[in-house]
Amino acid sequence: MTDLLITNVRPDAGSTADILIEDGLIAAVGPDLAPREGMEVVDGNNAIAIAPFVEAHVHLDKILWGLPWHSINVPDSLRAMIDNEVEIRRTLPWSVPERAGNLIRQCVAMGSTHIRSHVDISPTYRLDNLHGVLEAWERTKHAVDIEIVAFPQLGMLVEPGTAELMEAALDEGATIIGGIDPARIDGNPAGHLDTIFDIAHRKQAKIDIHLHERGELGLYEIGLIAERTKALGMQGRVVVSHAFCLGTASRDELSRAIDQLTGAGIGIISAVPGDIPVPPLFELADRGVRCAIASDSLRDTWNPHGNGDMLERCWLLSWRGNCRTDAELVAALDMGTRRGADLLDLEGHGLEPGCDGSLVLVEGENLAQIVVDRPKRALVVKRGRVVARNGAWVDEK
Amino acid sequence: MTDLLITNVRPDAGSTADILIEDGLIAAVGPDLAPREGMEVVDGNNAIAIAPFVEAHVHLDKILWGLPWHSINVPDSLRAMIDNEVEIRRTLPWSVPERAGNLIRQCVAMGSTHIRSHVDISPTYRLDNLHGVLEAWERTKHAVDIEIVAFPQLGMLVEPGTAELMEAALDEGATIIGGIDPARIDGNPAGHLDTIFDIAHRKQAKIDIHLHERGELGLYEIGLIAERTKALGMQGRVVVSHAFCLGTASRDELSRAIDQLTGAGIGIISAVPGDIPVPPLFELADRGVRCAIASDSLRDTWNPHGNGDMLERCWLLSWRGNCRTDAELVAALDMGTRRGADLLDLEGHGLEPGCDGSLVLVEGENLAQIVVDRPKRALVVKRGRVVARNGAWVDEK
Repeated sequence: MTDLLITNVRPDAGSTADILIEDGLIAAVGPDLAPREGMEVVDGNNAIAIAPFVEAHVHLDKILWGLPWHSINVPDSLRAMIDNEVEIRRTLPWSVPERAGNLIRQCVAMGSTHIRSHVDISPTYRLDNLHGVLEAWERTKHAVDIEIVAFPQLGMLVEPGTAELMEAALDEGATIIGGIDPARIDGNPAGHLDTIFDIAHRKQAKIDIHLHERGELGLYEIGLIAERTKALGMQGRVVVSHAFCLGTASRDELSRAIDQLTGAGIGIISAVPGDIPVPPLFELADRGVRCAIASDSLRDTWNPHGNGDMLERCWLLSWRGNCRTDAELVAALDMGTRRGADLLDLEGHGLEPGCDGSLVLVEGENLAQIVVDRPKRALVVKRGRVVARNGAWVDEK
Repeated sequence: MTDLLITNVRPDAGSTADILIEDGLIAAVGPDLAPREGMEVVDGNNAIAIAPFVEAHVHLDKILWGLPWHSINVPDSLRAMIDNEVEIRRTLPWSVPERAGNLIRQCVAMGSTHIRSHVDISPTYRLDNLHGVLEAWERTKHAVDIEIVAFPQLGMLVEPGTAELMEAALDEGATIIGGIDPARIDGNPAGHLDTIFDIAHRKQAKIDIHLHERGELGLYEIGLIAERTKALGMQGRVVVSHAFCLGTASRDELSRAIDQLTGAGIGIISAVPGDIPVPPLFELADRGVRCAIASDSLRDTWNPHGNGDMLERCWLLSWRGNCRTDAELVAALDMGTRRGADLLDLEGHGLEPGCDGSLVLVEGENLAQIVVDRPKRALVVKRGRVVARNGAWVDEK
């Protein structure tokens, strides 16, 4: 089923209309549309229709969502958390496909129909996590698009063989090369970045680098990333995830970093941290940096928080940013929808004829109100197919 | 109905037990309790039972909860927001009792059965807001205890007649004298504080002062408050709400402020701000300062955020504080329950025999998990009476 008529909805909280989806694409939006014979028709109950959420950064292989509670008892240091995870996953009784599938269904139920997931690649894991996530996706492909980052969570230069496996991952379904804290994990910022840029450039892959490193160090590394992006002509294909250093930068430092980011066409994905300053996403976006928000680590060996609900993440951004006016609240919503789609180069994201027939229905008054109230998603549609209803995944028939 | 047997629950997520409430008090907690004849029996479905949430700071007279969306279009400055509110409330088509009742029912549905509410007192409002909130409470008294702060929102020294009205409010149902930003609103820290301490001391009322003033200024005012508290022997009866200045204090400043707070027995109530540093509540509590969290302003002319859900507020505290271990998450829960009750001197808060027969059932695995997942409240009981069920207020029969 990829044809669907949804009647009686308010696209982007505007006037009531019907939305006709044919062959997986939006064919028409307007009043009193007629279904083709035999076409499924859903009454939208005057809900707001929005284009889907974009989950720009999760770790499907790490997830413990949907499983018994996992108590975290590990120090809050990056190396300790890395080692702890490896140890725990060694004996975890649930497979990667099972665990990844749990989170995929949750993300879809919350209205995200595109996911960028990092998967850990290392000499120990080899490509098992990649294969596991792909297996989970195989069963959910009708509901969600997934793009995969080959991610050197355990370190790359310090774990010989990792870079080769990351490159191999690109031949087996990953499309993006990851990186992580080039200074403190690999102990060699230039070496770390040279390696991942080399792989990505040769294989025509994108890049998405975890950068938790703060202050001057993080800002220095953004400079290194910008240099390499420009030198290799990779503008528009590189993302820095987290970029905590932008949250504490002085006005001058921020201005310089923004020039580097825009000059190299580098995007920023933030998970909206709770305990440290959030990078100034609205200002970055205003000044031409492509930005998005995402869930990141959630309910895993690292972090008890999070639930894959991007509408909640939009609200958290708005709450942390003291968004008070309707325009500010809607700007926060954009960070989890339209801007995420733009940053990940998704085509057909929107509610206009010609766009993907993918959308989310939310009962509410207006876009600002649904951000603060975060109502259950009434319906999630992926290319003309109902994939979640009333906050719950709909099983394939 | 003030007798109730709740079977099959896990008090504080411990072993399964029944809870017998007689004459509004917990009479017994244990396995296989028998109901007295004719007693209502509720199956707890193996949910976790906790003592109720305490809503230590809201503004029942300001609330627009449950009404059509109110778009905020006023600058984020205290004076602009005060004047804007007065102007809007002049023509609001909903009465104070109606609006206050909406939020009271919401708070109860979320599991708070005790509310401390500030009400605006001014020569323009006179005691109308107090009377309106009391009227709303009259209809909900079976479900919730309410204590009221006579609050000089518009200023006190700059609005002659306000102090006299605040004092009069104490004769008509308020039990606490409020204050607000003594430096910037009244332009006279010592004068503002002298006036409210004089009223409270003569009338044997408590004190609860809004202190948004930051940095050195706020810390200076905490010193002034501590001096007056000790001089008048009011230790244990004074609260500073918000105390943003504690969130940015240096180690030395914080240490000095903690000495002042503990020396004068002054408590701190924080609404867990999203956009500025949260006062270090866990450290304050560890060092002997009585602390609690609260919703504060929500869905009104000031602030679009918030929903009166204290479990969500506990989660926000845990998220902002990077609480990761079970013990840390439970400590965050305590801030909205046990510690709130302690700070407000509530007697009988707990699940032991002899305590108030008031409790909340939440379906979940353990206390840490319910903090991060914030499940709907399955049942809310006030002194043996079911007052909310499945996240919704239960109307009196």
